[in-house]
Amino acid sequence: MRSVGICGIGHTKFGEYPGSFLTMLCQAALEAMDDAGTSGGPHHVIDQILVSTMGAGILNHQSGVASAVADALALCPAMAETVENGPASGGSALKLGYMAIASGLCDCVLVVGGDQMTRVPGPVATDFVATMLHPEAEYRLGLTLPAFVGMFTRLLMDKNGITPRDLALLAVKNHANAMLNPLAQLHKPVALSDLMDKTETRRRDRIIADPLRLYDACPISDGAAAAVLCAMDRTQALGLRTPVRIAGIASATDTHVVANRADPTRLDAVRISAQHAYQMAGLHPADVDVAELHDAFLILELAESEEAGLFPRGTSHLALRRGETAIGGRLPINPSGGLKAKGHPLGATGISQVVELVHQLRGEAGERQVPGARTGLAINFGGFGNNVVSTLVTTRKEDA
Amino acid sequence: MRSVGICGIGHTKFGEYPGSFLTMLCQAALEAMDDAGTSGGPHHVIDQILVSTMGAGILNHQSGVASAVADALALCPAMAETVENGPASGGSALKLGYMAIASGLCDCVLVVGGDQMTRVPGPVATDFVATMLHPEAEYRLGLTLPAFVGMFTRLLMDKNGITPRDLALLAVKNHANAMLNPLAQLHKPVALSDLMDKTETRRRDRIIADPLRLYDACPISDGAAAAVLCAMDRTQALGLRTPVRIAGIASATDTHVVANRADPTRLDAVRISAQHAYQMAGLHPADVDVAELHDAFLILELAESEEAGLFPRGTSHLALRRGETAIGGRLPINPSGGLKAKGHPLGATGISQVVELVHQLRGEAGERQVPGARTGLAINFGGFGNNVVSTLVTTRKEDA
Repeated sequence: MRSVGICGIGHTKFGEYPGSFLTMLCQAALEAMDDAGTSGGPHHVIDQILVSTMGAGILNHQSGVASAVADALALCPAMAETVENGPASGGSALKLGYMAIASGLCDCVLVVGGDQMTRVPGPVATDFVATMLHPEAEYRLGLTLPAFVGMFTRLLMDKNGITPRDLALLAVKNHANAMLNPLAQLHKPVALSDLMDKTETRRRDRIIADPLRLYDACPISDGAAAAVLCAMDRTQALGLRTPVRIAGIASATDTHVVANRADPTRLDAVRISAQHAYQMAGLHPADVDVAELHDAFLILELAESEEAGLFPRGTSHLALRRGETAIGGRLPINPSGGLKAKGHPLGATGISQVVELVHQLRGEAGERQVPGARTGLAINFGGFGNNVVSTLVTTRKEDA
Repeated sequence: MRSVGICGIGHTKFGEYPGSFLTMLCQAALEAMDDAGTSGGPHHVIDQILVSTMGAGILNHQSGVASAVADALALCPAMAETVENGPASGGSALKLGYMAIASGLCDCVLVVGGDQMTRVPGPVATDFVATMLHPEAEYRLGLTLPAFVGMFTRLLMDKNGITPRDLALLAVKNHANAMLNPLAQLHKPVALSDLMDKTETRRRDRIIADPLRLYDACPISDGAAAAVLCAMDRTQALGLRTPVRIAGIASATDTHVVANRADPTRLDAVRISAQHAYQMAGLHPADVDVAELHDAFLILELAESEEAGLFPRGTSHLALRRGETAIGGRLPINPSGGLKAKGHPLGATGISQVVELVHQLRGEAGERQVPGARTGLAINFGGFGNNVVSTLVTTRKEDA
């Protein structure tokens, strides 16, 4: 199987995007192609385009977006498809792009994803996100993601002794990181005292779905991210930039109806997809220098880090308290600011996570650089953990 | 690169489906897994699920459908993604499934696609289909597919001397074929005299978009189709049925805005995708024994057959007049009844075409069997020719 790397990355500023959906996708894609160094003209290089979006149909009333991107970027007759996997659409598009190259049918794939969520009223956006819940069970019962995660948060707090202060610490960390990321949506420093009362036992921000508070959830975002994938053995011939290698990429599904899980605090799809990615890469959790985890709700950063083997079960909040997951700590998590503060335009997120890891592994992350980062892990979480993509990127040599 | 074959096929009756979207997809998928002989339990075999649908979001207000299918079929933790490429979504899912296996990352992929279009009023369905036109050009101008194809039909009739009677002959042929297909939507024999006046110069059925008449267009359909793909070198070990080999599969894009094409009667994406598929297969148009072409509007059967090299340009209507494309003719086209009479539930169609070819190549097509069929071509046409998938299946040996 051919090795696959990432030669170019692109990323719009997350937040409100003033232009059209197509323009937004093309902006990220053009930046990625430029970054990859497709100087001979990208149409000579790109064989396949994969567009990830969750909301093209429901929010934008559009289909065939991949074909529109191919045309707008003058990449025809390159192949083009749209990929949807809820908030893990971006990770899924990267995975299918990897397969396209590994199969030998393509040398170079443009993966670009995004969503525009700010133009609809909040309740419409919340309903839209809930469409990924089981259509004949959870959705019909009126459940929404915040309601779900509220229950999950309570269960995990009780089980592991996670305090309201721990969740506040996550918000403080990820907001601080986002301050160092010019493309993040929320550039607002948050101190522990902003979120906690003087005894540091009770949260001050308003309740969303008990015990979830306002600062436990990501904002509503527009944005796009893109990556140019290439066969490692073809980058030189195609005149592309030195790639960061995708060492492992895998996804896994779990029961769609969360109530059917034996233990609702376990996220099996995170564990299994990460295990498969490590296996494929010949790497171990201890090899991970930096991670971008899917903290659409902050509790997920803790839960995912344990399922992915980065910390023993029930201990990640202790590592957080010790500062181990801050930039400069033993294992920085979400140096980009995470979904929490960077923003979460659904179809972009999985790609955005990997874009950050490529910045880190190239050593070009500026003030938020994780020193000596050689291997990064991204976890892109779809549904409520029913479809998760894990990706390992590395600058290590393949035979190392 | 590993060879990939089709071990199992499934197909609902096209028309109005009484159950839910998820149930419909699962019905086709279960039939395909059963047909493939996944006797040890499909969850031991299926590594990846690809669901093709164009309308999940817009018509069904659902996302994450692939995750729901994985769960409903008890295939977790198999990987699962949804693929969208307008009416060519099915062909695209087959192509990505092929890549997943050819890459070596998967051995066995379930591809299932469908749409439910009959529950919305006709104008809503027409608007939905039009969402695949360019969002910032054609769609905003109020163009619909029938309006588009009316213009295309007029241009091609004038250019090649295609008569109203030729289009009626296509309807008569495809309706006759559908009479032999128990899963077809329209079981209604149509005689030339039903569609033409006594002089055989004027059509009698009502105008849709001049010169298009009612019988030139496919019906509005519900339906699903599925296929189990497997690495040819793994079918025996997995205990699966003898596969029909996918010899070539490729797609191509063309300008999204049709007005930008140098010659609006040319369908470059059909030509290029077919050429790539022939090349990959080491086969030629003369090797094709049977074809399923995308006749959402009848004129497309003629245009596609020429772009795919089955007939010299401007002559396919002459072959039609001579009966060459009827079952029993030199090169039968759309023995299934085609989209015109079998029905066209968008996300199902590309898979449905290949399902018919597998029936034909297995010699199990009953009354509509094309004698001695060894190689079949499917053309799945997305947008207005802006994204086309060509697939060649064969029972020929690989080194033949």
